[in-house]
Amino acid sequence: MIRDQTRKVNLGPLTIGGGAPVLVQTMTNTDTRDVSATLGQINRVAERGAEAVRLAVLDEKAARLLAEIVPHSPVPLIADIHFDWRLAVLALKAQVAGLRLNPGNIKDPQKIRKVAEAAGEANAAIRVGVNAGSLEAEIFSQYGRTPEALVRSAVKELQLIESTGFKNLVVSLKASEVGLTVEAARLMARETDYPQHLGITEAGDQESGVVKSSVGLGLLLYEGIGDTVRVSLTGPPEAEVDCAWEILRSLGLRARGPEFISCPTCGRCQIDLPQLLKEVKDRLRSLKTPLKIAVMGCVVNGPGEASQADLGVAGGSGDGAVFVKGQPVGRYKFGELAGVLEEKARLMAGEPRA
Amino acid sequence: MIRDQTRKVNLGPLTIGGGAPVLVQTMTNTDTRDVSATLGQINRVAERGAEAVRLAVLDEKAARLLAEIVPHSPVPLIADIHFDWRLAVLALKAQVAGLRLNPGNIKDPQKIRKVAEAAGEANAAIRVGVNAGSLEAEIFSQYGRTPEALVRSAVKELQLIESTGFKNLVVSLKASEVGLTVEAARLMARETDYPQHLGITEAGDQESGVVKSSVGLGLLLYEGIGDTVRVSLTGPPEAEVDCAWEILRSLGLRARGPEFISCPTCGRCQIDLPQLLKEVKDRLRSLKTPLKIAVMGCVVNGPGEASQADLGVAGGSGDGAVFVKGQPVGRYKFGELAGVLEEKARLMAGEPRA
Repeated sequence: MIRDQTRKVNLGPLTIGGGAPVLVQTMTNTDTRDVSATLGQINRVAERGAEAVRLAVLDEKAARLLAEIVPHSPVPLIADIHFDWRLAVLALKAQVAGLRLNPGNIKDPQKIRKVAEAAGEANAAIRVGVNAGSLEAEIFSQYGRTPEALVRSAVKELQLIESTGFKNLVVSLKASEVGLTVEAARLMARETDYPQHLGITEAGDQESGVVKSSVGLGLLLYEGIGDTVRVSLTGPPEAEVDCAWEILRSLGLRARGPEFISCPTCGRCQIDLPQLLKEVKDRLRSLKTPLKIAVMGCVVNGPGEASQADLGVAGGSGDGAVFVKGQPVGRYKFGELAGVLEEKARLMAGEPRA
Repeated sequence: MIRDQTRKVNLGPLTIGGGAPVLVQTMTNTDTRDVSATLGQINRVAERGAEAVRLAVLDEKAARLLAEIVPHSPVPLIADIHFDWRLAVLALKAQVAGLRLNPGNIKDPQKIRKVAEAAGEANAAIRVGVNAGSLEAEIFSQYGRTPEALVRSAVKELQLIESTGFKNLVVSLKASEVGLTVEAARLMARETDYPQHLGITEAGDQESGVVKSSVGLGLLLYEGIGDTVRVSLTGPPEAEVDCAWEILRSLGLRARGPEFISCPTCGRCQIDLPQLLKEVKDRLRSLKTPLKIAVMGCVVNGPGEASQADLGVAGGSGDGAVFVKGQPVGRYKFGELAGVLEEKARLMAGEPRA
């Protein structure tokens, strides 16, 4: 996979773009003014693999309280600003690593320039985040709800910010439609070198949101577009982080923890495979080392898949054959299999049970 | 989206390929010899939107009992055959609409020709279904686990079957890796006109399997490749059908029932949006008419998204503004919103409550 060439942008200690690993982001859904709830959620999503976290900054109180959140966060924080440019300046004073501005709702060029200057002094990043649901009226009336509209809206704001000398810019062009999001990102990648933050916005609950985000982000990432991602789900941000990692892993871009290959089970399967898979996953949830583990129901594809994995099991009649790096290492009764797989996985990962 | 040009294949009363709508398939995970359990599952997945269902045929008893299943199935059935060609002939006698043969495990050309002749007489379809986990040894040793290996294995078998005059052929090239599956399908689409059945095999449980299938199938379908799909999940086949429909819908290829656009909720949201979304979904689960329904938490993107949808709500402070075809039609208290949305959706769909 050839990654699109983008400029390097700093987000606190992290790099976005220029070939850096695709960054996993999420956003809190707590009230940012509730410092303890917000920090709790930041810590949980960071533990789950979120590498940067965005927070809604709705009012001055929220902006000021960022100063009590930022020093305790294990990951860089990004203030999500709408309508009021002064909240951006307050957030920068609280040392956020980045701002997200929506060109649809801070319109005065003077105010945007002031924000850019403050961000430059604070060495923060700015993401210009266009959303098809909140396009500026004049862009919407000229281009409609099209890829061009999203790109024009973003480029206008990006150029305005760059005119102040500020270059630490990321862009995102989100829509709730996969096709519109994909075509906008492709157009932006052809025309500019800004790193892109990818997301399908208003993607829906976990049932449909995971699918939409996987289709949209997956297809852009597979063609090399995208430097940072956020999966948007109506649900806990932890699920967003899990889904983002699954997308990156499915394309071989990044991996975290064990990957499970398992068959859908059919009439050929003679062991309780979903139960075995669940038990092995639960036992290994804390593992950080990427390992490929095949949990297969039968001998048709079982040994083949198991031999491609670091560790595998192919179910038989009430038992299973275990493979390590493609070599059979023994048959075990069903009740023993989860324990055997955990033990072997922890040994390979060098991560003994806590 | 320009669909890849493929030949038309008949599967019972259905058409696969040649521009026909992408067909949604799944596979039972019951013991096929348990006629009543199998028919029960076939009926449930058909009600959920499965348009063809595959069954594992492990032994002669299963093959013969197909004769008691086929006449009662609301959708065409496909017999999944491995190792023993005689089971294919028995399944055809039982009037299945199609066979799936795995070139990795029926090797004698004479036997394959006999199956093709029987399928021709029965006017059935044959899918040559290659699986990276069960490649023939000689292909594997020559090409390794590569797109070429999958294509060569399939083409060899397809040509052998075509040499008998049988043309009603579908092909699938499945692997547990997204990249391998995608590149194999692309290569096959460039080289041949067989309709392709898409799937990521051994995709994993719902957590990772939905993501892998969405990424892989989504990106192929977006470039016009794929005439029928099966999402493989370690879990209930109903979930496979739901996921397949979500993928097709996300790309605007096909739709069934309401589509929900909803925001991830953030600090701006002042109503219990996940609860509202869940209640509206539950109330409208039986709806078959495609409708776009936006359930949004706040005024930033809410009215914009709601105005693009057939029906929408943008949350306020303990209440919500409801939109019909972009026009505001009133504000309602939180507790009334789900009922109001159901009523308006059923009216638009012309599907009153049963």
